[in-house]
Amino acid sequence: MPAYSTNMRIKFPILALVLEVIMIILFSVFAVYDDGKGHDHDSSNSSHHAEPEDPMNLYPMFQDVHVMIFIGFGFLMTFLKRYGFSSVGVNLLLAAFGLQWGLLTQGFCHLTDGKIKISIFKIINADFSTATVLISFGAVLGKTSPVQLLIMTVLEIGIFAINEHLVAMFKATDVGASMIIHAFGAYFGLAVARVLYRPGLKNGHENDGSVYHSDMFAMIGTVFLWMFWPSFNSAIVEPGFPQMTAVINTYLSLAACVVSAYAVSSLVEHKGKLDMVHIQNATLAGGVAVGTCANMNIGPFGAMLIGFVAGIISTLGFKYLSPILASKLGIQDTCGVHNLHGMPGILGGLAGIVAVALGKIEGKASMQAAALASSLGFALVGGTITGFIMKLPFLAQPPDQNCFDDSIYWEVPEEAEEHEESLTAEHYKNKAEV
Amino acid sequence: MPAYSTNMRIKFPILALVLEVIMIILFSVFAVYDDGKGHDHDSSNSSHHAEPEDPMNLYPMFQDVHVMIFIGFGFLMTFLKRYGFSSVGVNLLLAAFGLQWGLLTQGFCHLTDGKIKISIFKIINADFSTATVLISFGAVLGKTSPVQLLIMTVLEIGIFAINEHLVAMFKATDVGASMIIHAFGAYFGLAVARVLYRPGLKNGHENDGSVYHSDMFAMIGTVFLWMFWPSFNSAIVEPGFPQMTAVINTYLSLAACVVSAYAVSSLVEHKGKLDMVHIQNATLAGGVAVGTCANMNIGPFGAMLIGFVAGIISTLGFKYLSPILASKLGIQDTCGVHNLHGMPGILGGLAGIVAVALGKIEGKASMQAAALASSLGFALVGGTITGFIMKLPFLAQPPDQNCFDDSIYWEVPEEAEEHEESLTAEHYKNKAEV
Amino acid sequence: MPAYSTNMRIKFPILALVLEVIMIILFSVFAVYDDGKGHDHDSSNSSHHAEPEDPMNLYPMFQDVHVMIFIGFGFLMTFLKRYGFSSVGVNLLLAAFGLQWGLLTQGFCHLTDGKIKISIFKIINADFSTATVLISFGAVLGKTSPVQLLIMTVLEIGIFAINEHLVAMFKATDVGASMIIHAFGAYFGLAVARVLYRPGLKNGHENDGSVYHSDMFAMIGTVFLWMFWPSFNSAIVEPGFPQMTAVINTYLSLAACVVSAYAVSSLVEHKGKLDMVHIQNATLAGGVAVGTCANMNIGPFGAMLIGFVAGIISTLGFKYLSPILASKLGIQDTCGVHNLHGMPGILGGLAGIVAVALGKIEGKASMQAAALASSLGFALVGGTITGFIMKLPFLAQPPDQNCFDDSIYWEVPEEAEEHEESLTAEHYKNKAEV
Repeated sequence: MPAYSTNMRIKFPILALVLEVIMIILFSVFAVYDDGKGHDHDSSNSSHHAEPEDPMNLYPMFQDVHVMIFIGFGFLMTFLKRYGFSSVGVNLLLAAFGLQWGLLTQGFCHLTDGKIKISIFKIINADFSTATVLISFGAVLGKTSPVQLLIMTVLEIGIFAINEHLVAMFKATDVGASMIIHAFGAYFGLAVARVLYRPGLKNGHENDGSVYHSDMFAMIGTVFLWMFWPSFNSAIVEPGFPQMTAVINTYLSLAACVVSAYAVSSLVEHKGKLDMVHIQNATLAGGVAVGTCANMNIGPFGAMLIGFVAGIISTLGFKYLSPILASKLGIQDTCGVHNLHGMPGILGGLAGIVAVALGKIEGKASMQAAALASSLGFALVGGTITGFIMKLPFLAQPPDQNCFDDSIYWEVPEEAEEHEESLTAEHYKNKAEV
Repeated sequence: MPAYSTNMRIKFPILALVLEVIMIILFSVFAVYDDGKGHDHDSSNSSHHAEPEDPMNLYPMFQDVHVMIFIGFGFLMTFLKRYGFSSVGVNLLLAAFGLQWGLLTQGFCHLTDGKIKISIFKIINADFSTATVLISFGAVLGKTSPVQLLIMTVLEIGIFAINEHLVAMFKATDVGASMIIHAFGAYFGLAVARVLYRPGLKNGHENDGSVYHSDMFAMIGTVFLWMFWPSFNSAIVEPGFPQMTAVINTYLSLAACVVSAYAVSSLVEHKGKLDMVHIQNATLAGGVAVGTCANMNIGPFGAMLIGFVAGIISTLGFKYLSPILASKLGIQDTCGVHNLHGMPGILGGLAGIVAVALGKIEGKASMQAAALASSLGFALVGGTITGFIMKLPFLAQPPDQNCFDDSIYWEVPEEAEEHEESLTAEHYKNKAEV
Repeated sequence: MPAYSTNMRIKFPILALVLEVIMIILFSVFAVYDDGKGHDHDSSNSSHHAEPEDPMNLYPMFQDVHVMIFIGFGFLMTFLKRYGFSSVGVNLLLAAFGLQWGLLTQGFCHLTDGKIKISIFKIINADFSTATVLISFGAVLGKTSPVQLLIMTVLEIGIFAINEHLVAMFKATDVGASMIIHAFGAYFGLAVARVLYRPGLKNGHENDGSVYHSDMFAMIGTVFLWMFWPSFNSAIVEPGFPQMTAVINTYLSLAACVVSAYAVSSLVEHKGKLDMVHIQNATLAGGVAVGTCANMNIGPFGAMLIGFVAGIISTLGFKYLSPILASKLGIQDTCGVHNLHGMPGILGGLAGIVAVALGKIEGKASMQAAALASSLGFALVGGTITGFIMKLPFLAQPPDQNCFDDSIYWEVPEEAEEHEESLTAEHYKNKAEV
């Protein structure tokens, strides 16, 4: 049991309650239901977006995205042997708070008569805004307190809204958000992780790994993300054939990505075995990478090519790049978000520049490049500043020996600790030898 | 291995087969497919409900509700360390039987030319009717036999249909069913639990608790319930903007509820830690409490306020009220349904009375109050009678020492028992000391 | 650790990469997005199918089917104690590759101007085609290598497309695919299993069984399959009331099937206990069996009757037939696909013949019979040939002692092995006695 202050005794509940009360007050001032009149939101992400007549048209898409945010991201991070409560639990907390804050920050950029008119389209975007935080959460998973993470949520969603608004002003296209969510979220998180660098974890931590069942729980997250990614990339696309194109491109990119990720995982691993880390993550890189181009006429094979390359890059990143980032640059990226969201996000942004240059959709390649640069810039600068704020003494984080351990923040069933002991071979033998 | 009769040898299969044969006969007499003509069902829950033109319009909503019933309720109850098979398995049995019986009992109240015309709307309501049983199941989880629970299903769904019909006659509104499902199901279950009180469990039972992995499985249920609750509260609302309003109110209420539940959990627990019981349950109270008002113009902040309060009440209920109910009133509420469905359901009913009084929707506050009173009355009287029937000697229930144990009703893999032993610290040490 | 060649070192990555590159090339030549013009695909499964106006109309149905393929089949097979990674992981690989290959093979039968026009309808059918492989996978689970399974995927989906095309030419109806997917996939897999017969597994294998948690993971698969089966059976049905009929028939068949499967499981098991194997599988037989008749006017009670019988047959098959198939015919059917897909699929085909003869839908009973015979014939012949190909020396499969063991193909967390040891009672005692 830790002797240090976890911030949980008083700071966490006070901060959470104060933030929620602020939300309720701001909503009482600014938020109303959408009544179908006076829309202006379609300028945000898709210049072609036309409001569907039935206000519920997007609802099934919304629910798919919702599942990705809460089950997908939540369970994907449960791979750590002793950090499942925090993965799925803190994911729920950050996303539930973040979607309220995201509705406001994005809404402030699109006020109608001084009000934020909440529609299904708006709550999809609110869910999207939380995705940035959940991606960054992956980079610092196990090494930060809920208090720190709530602060990160406030700052990151604010900075995300500014960048998103800027990208919209560029008239750049990024329907599947390769740049503004995936690359942004990843590099934001990596910048935070850099600032919070812990030399004490240089040689690893006994809890920084999976057990058989925790890997199975993580696959729930992986597969739900994988299945619903076509909805993520098409939710805010113009209805009809463009939306169908986004679905098909994502479906095919992900399928090709799975095969290349499996192949490369086997190629680089000992005796040709597959590595669960790659399967849980790299199989999704195709969804990230095809995001910017999802609604473009890149052809089914073009989508597959993007996914194929993304699966290779992502798997190689896990195998070769992550260890270097940790040892040389001091970036300890717990979930490898650089490989799942960072590089594939940049690949998506680059593919978008090329596709626009080739005339696959209306737009300017230079503006696409500006959008990518803006997303990376805001992420790195914003993440660094956020990291320093999270490091402030009164937001103390768990000490190295308590990393990756639910029992600092959660009442853990007693058995689990006993059980855990029994799993350590040395301890096990010692007991037997008494 | 228990030496007593489990009822499983003959009574369970006979009862199940007889019930199913009765269902098939009744369906052959009464049930036909809806052909889109001669509808009268919209009087049941929403006076504004207009039949959508496409008979499949509600299908995505139906599937969301379906997931809540079978995955949501099923896995939410898997938190017990040795009762996972029964939780998800008996949940499946009761819901699969209950939806057939619910189609009939609700259908008898709305016959068209002497027939029950089955539509997507009707099967949503059939799923809803099973929710009452699954809520009550939570109150008696681990202490009742499948035979007893099938009897409870028959009685509870019948009583539910009567109460629902009465509430419809009052012209009271309860689209999200705070009163007619949540409060009804909870108090019905608590009344049954009171009748089946077991003094032998006063000091707890070694299996009445979770282990690390069982808490993770329960989170699958929690998160699916949480995500799809907007569909639960809006499925039978008039299409278009009213339905969108119900979605948004539920979405926001749940989001606010998560934050307040986390804050209060940390506030009341040892060292400010979070408690999985609260997170698994209290985070959902916002969905229950906003049910009655979901389609009303209460404003986004009004929905958040309801969720915020529900999260607080529910968490405090788990911490302080449940122990008192058990020790003073003899109500051993295994899953704490009073905190998740009971009190938030009443809160929802009260909010509905206030909202109707304030003119947020057409209706009479007095009729809303009558609906709440009726739901509670039918629940308490019906549950008490049902409890006494379940206590009849030939429906023998598991003895105290076999509570919360799958192995009475299931062929459990041998290893699990061995494993379980290894988790008991004393036993573990004894073995080592031999 | 196995000393034999697993094929994983070089053959697996090379095969996977080559197959994927071929896919991308074929897609670049043949595949384009559907633009809504010049459709001919509706001849494939439903003579009444009319193209919906919105190209995204079927998308929610598609996502339900998608969940069945990747979560449903994937997790259903995780019941084995040491084979969870392979179950859900190889399921993902085979389905992701198979859907690409299925799009092509089915598309070659329906070229428009020499091109395959990809629509939501087409990707639903692509997902369907992978289901045959995943069913067959169940018969050989734990005893085949990923290399063998990729070969099986290529061959089985090709043969499936030929049979499906033939059945369409018969103008036979099989909307829920009882014959062309379920019976076909099952008997194909059983034929493969027969060819790959292993005498060494005659007396069982220590890993050929479940543990408590693996049974819980499998229930995730079961319940998702169960819930979304109405979508599987109705996805390609003519929109409107026929589609609603297919949903309702499947919903009711599955509900009745659950009750009969539970009853019979208890009836045939020791002391009347329930058996997880039956619950995980036989509860789904109603969805299989009602497939061919799903869109027919068989009446709600007719659907329930089919489900009721399917639940009984399937449970009895697990209890009495599977052991005979293994001992007398040398068919070692790991997941019991004969009971879940084989017999219920034939039951569905027979019900379809009767229903067509009774005029429940336009068609000829003889053509229905021809479709059933064709499906079984292609399955048995195709499966046998495929089995011999899979047995070729350079596609070496795991030796008997490595069956049902993830660690041949996966980097398994070390603890899992230690853990596993601790679960063996003898070993456990030995350690203590040192």
